[in-house]
Amino acid sequence: MHVVVPYAAERPKTRLSEVLDAAERRDFSRAMLDDVLAAVDGAVGDDPDVTVEVLATTEIDDVEVAHVVDERPLTTAVNDVLESTDVERDPVAVVMSDLALATPGVLCEFLGTGGDVVVAPGLGAGTNALLVRHPGFRVDYHGTSYLDHLEIADGLGATVEEFDSRRLSVDIDEPADLVEVLVHSDGSARDWLVDAGFELDVSGGRVGITRNV
Amino acid sequence: MHVVVPYAAERPKTRLSEVLDAAERRDFSRAMLDDVLAAVDGAVGDDPDVTVEVLATTEIDDVEVAHVVDERPLTTAVNDVLESTDVERDPVAVVMSDLALATPGVLCEFLGTGGDVVVAPGLGAGTNALLVRHPGFRVDYHGTSYLDHLEIADGLGATVEEFDSRRLSVDIDEPADLVEVLVHSDGSARDWLVDAGFELDVSGGRVGITRNV
Repeated sequence: MHVVVPYAAERPKTRLSEVLDAAERRDFSRAMLDDVLAAVDGAVGDDPDVTVEVLATTEIDDVEVAHVVDERPLTTAVNDVLESTDVERDPVAVVMSDLALATPGVLCEFLGTGGDVVVAPGLGAGTNALLVRHPGFRVDYHGTSYLDHLEIADGLGATVEEFDSRRLSVDIDEPADLVEVLVHSDGSARDWLVDAGFELDVSGGRVGITRNV
Repeated sequence: MHVVVPYAAERPKTRLSEVLDAAERRDFSRAMLDDVLAAVDGAVGDDPDVTVEVLATTEIDDVEVAHVVDERPLTTAVNDVLESTDVERDPVAVVMSDLALATPGVLCEFLGTGGDVVVAPGLGAGTNALLVRHPGFRVDYHGTSYLDHLEIADGLGATVEEFDSRRLSVDIDEPADLVEVLVHSDGSARDWLVDAGFELDVSGGRVGITRNV
């Protein structure tokens, strides 16, 4: 199995600009990548049949796994991986780098799920983690990618398994998502937020975040 | 086992008032209740050791399961059920009535999960489904109830299992949540939204909803 973790290293997480400046968004985004890589590492252990690779939009430093640079859009870059891999022998998993709630346990279960295509949907009709064993399958990450991926699989006669996980469904894009990191993570992304002064705000009707700087 | 489905029959879902008027919110809320009850029914089958009951804030019509009326706040009403039940012999499950994505399969797995207390967290630090087998456990649904429930269990020395499910994590409170119903449900709540003219809107950067009336 080949696990790919796409990572937008430049100008990441623009929808967090309301609460984090550009440099902070880069640091926080990197902390999430490190957490996801740690969770993948915990899930695959020292299995010699699994390779893990970061697919980055630009050169990155200090990652403990291999990384390749591909400046093209996510869909193009991932489809290039799928095309160049014999996925029937060596399935490809695509795990987003902002799944800050991912744990080794849930990723282990995900990677072990059978099916031509396994999808862990994200909130908002996205596709947060994907496992491809069908040679014809290609991705389309734009818009309602979850529905598009079902349709693409259907067109191939490929079986699709939905992997039902809250931890894989939450990608951290917006200020409200930071609540989930503060509540449900104990990784470096949570530490980063706490060090940056973020805490839960329960003063309103809903649980939010506040920042003390 | 005793499965309780709390249901705020009066003035439900005020956070949907931006897109639904009061009568529509009541209808939609009721459609979600029906979907949740159907999922519970599918999960428990005809197991004679399971009772299902709606815990409603006011009298409701045409429900196929028993319902009791309790006008008090949710926490008080649920704790009254816990106090009056021998949960070691007859565990109590509390499943919210707005979990429109719940399926028989995921609820079956939830109800079969071991532990003194089993929690399916909701987004925003909530508690969307709860299974109680420890006699001292009491709920507190206000604010960060997930964290509060962990603390209450910890104070009792009770074991807590986190049940990781996207389908149980999404409670339908806000307009953005309607996307999840349109994408991931095939129940009466989805039908209601479609009949009311709602559809996915992929014109912006994120997937949203639009209404044709």
